[in-house]
Amino acid sequence: MRIITISREFGSGGRELGKRLAEALGVPCYDQQIIEMIAEKKKLDKSYVAHVSEKDIRVLYPSTIGKHIIAPNYIGHQSVQIMVEQKKLIEELATQGDCVIVGRCADLILKAYQPLNIFVYADQETKVTRCMERSDETENLSPEQLVRKMKEIDKNRASYRAMFTSDRWGSKEGYHLCVNTSGKGIKTLISGLTAYVNGWFGVQ
Amino acid sequence: MRIITISREFGSGGRELGKRLAEALGVPCYDQQIIEMIAEKKKLDKSYVAHVSEKDIRVLYPSTIGKHIIAPNYIGHQSVQIMVEQKKLIEELATQGDCVIVGRCADLILKAYQPLNIFVYADQETKVTRCMERSDETENLSPEQLVRKMKEIDKNRASYRAMFTSDRWGSKEGYHLCVNTSGKGIKTLISGLTAYVNGWFGVQ
Repeated sequence: MRIITISREFGSGGRELGKRLAEALGVPCYDQQIIEMIAEKKKLDKSYVAHVSEKDIRVLYPSTIGKHIIAPNYIGHQSVQIMVEQKKLIEELATQGDCVIVGRCADLILKAYQPLNIFVYADQETKVTRCMERSDETENLSPEQLVRKMKEIDKNRASYRAMFTSDRWGSKEGYHLCVNTSGKGIKTLISGLTAYVNGWFGVQ
Repeated sequence: MRIITISREFGSGGRELGKRLAEALGVPCYDQQIIEMIAEKKKLDKSYVAHVSEKDIRVLYPSTIGKHIIAPNYIGHQSVQIMVEQKKLIEELATQGDCVIVGRCADLILKAYQPLNIFVYADQETKVTRCMERSDETENLSPEQLVRKMKEIDKNRASYRAMFTSDRWGSKEGYHLCVNTSGKGIKTLISGLTAYVNGWFGVQ
């Protein structure tokens, strides 16, 4: 079975890399769909699930969703439920066959499946440029605000990871391959990565 | 021009990876040859050149070569000469065409040539096993002595690098691709890496 997990710095192009790699390998890529599936199953708002899906539940007290202050206990309970649901779902997806999974500590959750774990990173200039070009996620943010947002999201990811392992998020020792996308179009890296994945799993 | 530099943890298989990658690409690999060329040119003993070629010159005081204590000034002067010679030689080799260069901070020395810089690493178990299998370099060492030797050599490399840059040795930000060889035969990684290199340089 070929399970590939993608961990990534915000803005590094990890999501695009995961999607394109999955296409090249002819396997599904799970990313936002995980959130949609959980939201549907738990009858929750997608943006709410997205909000807590990669956050350390310990930092969610107290929290607001939109303009509504949510009672801490409610948030805590919901977050744990979402986390458990997410873990179950990721395991279910893995049993269905070869796939690429982006984020959500899938590398740790699926350890028993011996996935190939890739970390995608880039220098700040590349990440800011990439985010500015994709206005859907970063509308109306100045470069300075973007850098702050990037750091905050990566900090949340690191904190989320810390619930699963003592390995530091982004520390190369925790991954099989670390891919620097600085100054590179993601497309140009895909054929090489596809060959690397196939070699790793002994597929000719 | 395709220049690939390999930096590596001792025992990670970086040298083998460099050699095999060069073969697959059909380009020369420079590693020990650099030492031989310098030794010949400067009329120095190969093992002496090897001794200082990746060491921070600041830690060479005082030093012994074999059983002979060498005067600090002599060592200092010689080391600087070897370092300068090595830098010149690496630049000369790069101008001759596509190649793979292992170690010696070639990634930093050749920055202007826009090399693809790879860092090769592995977990301790893999590195000890690999070293034990290659008795030529590690004859008569116990696993504990081997771990100490590994750490010392990597520390020297880190220190050597610190003369060129403030980037930390082995920190993924300083490289384009970090390859974890834990539990993997180097051979199995080569076809993927070759494709990655070709993609990087826009070669089909």
